[in-house]
Amino acid sequence: MKSKFVTLKLGIKKNKLDGLLIKLPHNNTAIVCTKNKFAASSIITSKENIRSGKVCYIFINSGNANACTGKEGHANTKKILNILSKKLDCSDDQILIMSTGIIGRQLPMKNIIDSITKNSFSNHTSLKNAASAIMTTDKFPKYITKSYTLSSKKVTFRGICKGAGMIEPNMATMLGFIETNVAIPKTLLKKYLRSCVNLSFNNISVDGDTSTNDMVAFSSTGDVSLNLKNAGVEKKFLSYASDFFLTLASLIVKDGEGATKFIKLSIINSKTLSLAQDISRKISNSLLVKTAMFGEDPNWGRIVASLGAVESEYIHPDRVKLIINDILCFKNGIPTNNLVSKLKQSMKNNKIEITIDLNNGKQNQTIYFSDLSHEYVRINSEYTT
Amino acid sequence: MKSKFVTLKLGIKKNKLDGLLIKLPHNNTAIVCTKNKFAASSIITSKENIRSGKVCYIFINSGNANACTGKEGHANTKKILNILSKKLDCSDDQILIMSTGIIGRQLPMKNIIDSITKNSFSNHTSLKNAASAIMTTDKFPKYITKSYTLSSKKVTFRGICKGAGMIEPNMATMLGFIETNVAIPKTLLKKYLRSCVNLSFNNISVDGDTSTNDMVAFSSTGDVSLNLKNAGVEKKFLSYASDFFLTLASLIVKDGEGATKFIKLSIINSKTLSLAQDISRKISNSLLVKTAMFGEDPNWGRIVASLGAVESEYIHPDRVKLIINDILCFKNGIPTNNLVSKLKQSMKNNKIEITIDLNNGKQNQTIYFSDLSHEYVRINSEYTT
Repeated sequence: MKSKFVTLKLGIKKNKLDGLLIKLPHNNTAIVCTKNKFAASSIITSKENIRSGKVCYIFINSGNANACTGKEGHANTKKILNILSKKLDCSDDQILIMSTGIIGRQLPMKNIIDSITKNSFSNHTSLKNAASAIMTTDKFPKYITKSYTLSSKKVTFRGICKGAGMIEPNMATMLGFIETNVAIPKTLLKKYLRSCVNLSFNNISVDGDTSTNDMVAFSSTGDVSLNLKNAGVEKKFLSYASDFFLTLASLIVKDGEGATKFIKLSIINSKTLSLAQDISRKISNSLLVKTAMFGEDPNWGRIVASLGAVESEYIHPDRVKLIINDILCFKNGIPTNNLVSKLKQSMKNNKIEITIDLNNGKQNQTIYFSDLSHEYVRINSEYTT
Repeated sequence: MKSKFVTLKLGIKKNKLDGLLIKLPHNNTAIVCTKNKFAASSIITSKENIRSGKVCYIFINSGNANACTGKEGHANTKKILNILSKKLDCSDDQILIMSTGIIGRQLPMKNIIDSITKNSFSNHTSLKNAASAIMTTDKFPKYITKSYTLSSKKVTFRGICKGAGMIEPNMATMLGFIETNVAIPKTLLKKYLRSCVNLSFNNISVDGDTSTNDMVAFSSTGDVSLNLKNAGVEKKFLSYASDFFLTLASLIVKDGEGATKFIKLSIINSKTLSLAQDISRKISNSLLVKTAMFGEDPNWGRIVASLGAVESEYIHPDRVKLIINDILCFKNGIPTNNLVSKLKQSMKNNKIEITIDLNNGKQNQTIYFSDLSHEYVRINSEYTT
């Protein structure tokens, strides 16, 4: 059995969908949350409730992050869950809550309570509509369904997410919900979620740089049994799951606020993984690299300069190779000649692949990011307070 | 005696000033250079030459960074100094060289050699013209002169700098030359320079995030003697010098590519200095904070979210106070009420002051940064390769 979705008009946004209730068929869900010091009330509450081990609903509101709202904000969260649990005939700690939107503003409680009270929560809708209901600055709803065959069984994943500011997560940028039909022991679900998030949502953004409200939930419906104790089966399942998570997370990059390019940056043959991560973050956050991508400018010097600014004894200019769209741009400390026009042409693609070979070890790291356009500035300077 | 300036047309830029020769009256100069792994040939050469202890010329070219140009690029630097030293009747190691411009392209040596060969280097010009000759994307020449009275003597400073991309230093963003009439022992000059740069140029940019070509030179003409062994006099001199350096460096922020706002961010009462520095870098580099400033948006939640994303056990949400333009926005974990309209009004100022009181120690750090505008994106996506 799959989860069911009910979209809501909570009255946070005027006459717009601004909420979602997910009815989980099975009480087996894990979450990963932001590490932000100013974590929203929804994060604190969900972290408490997940411990009950019997979560069967996820309630999401958009338009208001309910972060930095103090005791009043936290009491409001509790109140919402309290009313909702009565309505749904469950206990408060069986509901997870996610919030996204503006920081520092109290929720319009009257509207929300009215809306919940009047709703029968029986009007189920599609995955697409569910994804639409939680959008903020997103330009399109983000949802996918995928199936794979494993041990002759049909393994499925369904997921929705929201977020459209990848560079540094927007206020309450990223929410995600992913469901699989595979039965996963409760003890393993959180571990699997972490592993998949590390290879997906954490690679489109900056570790530790999460917003006040980021949360990703992973649910198992328990419909299909796999022998996950078999290392080969487990590995295969995790590779499918990671692939699914990454495909979903990539939608956020593709909808990166104002994005015109989808850039894959691979740091290969690094001495350490943390160095590869540092480099990938540095370059993917460089405004000069991002604007060069937007300008379709084959100015690879900006990438090299950004790489060189990472403090490490394991970056040797003479060993570094830089490859953009299969074109070797830089090697042995000097540019390769006469490739500017070929490179310039290739920069017109919507997808750009950058590989930096440090030639100094065996660790690799891939990150996905978007360019920086006029539209980004417009969206983020006009986003109203 | 003061330094003399000769502006040059080296033929790197078409029919434009693209070079400067500074004739130092006294061989007492110190430099600080980028730590970038891909440091340009000019950096490597100047670091060698400064050791001679008898530098009397600084040669600067703009339009070409001569970085990532390998052995050929380095041989070109040596050749330029060789021709120049013959012309100026000095040894090669008496000349410092600074370069700024595009990375990965060889210098147009024929043009440069022709230009140097034909020049008499006797046509001295003003500080303003000197500053103009080294501009790249700068919108105005950056030069100042200032004097102070110390121990009944007139202490003067003169300086020029270039740079207009503060967020992450542009390719070869920042060059600076500062001269004082005070006699400073050679053993102290470098120490003084470091101290002043830490309080100025390093506070408008990100430590360790320097470009391939950044360099700041500090010269003493030796005309005025002060008793610098007296701790009080030395302290006073350093405070004047730092003040001067900061005023000069501030011009770079004011000319921040596309900048419409000059933002002063102070992190106060931090447990450690490095934490205050981490926070100031994080916030001043946040695209969401920068675009909010451009949009004159009183969206202080973005500042708090950015603060909360810094990993440290010494940030306590309940202790943090956020003050923008003298308006207390956030305290005890909640926003102060009813100030949005007042705050909104104050955001229209060109100067914005943000103070974050961590209320958890005694260390302070101030950083100066600019907003992120459409113009920034335009400049950096159109900057041609």
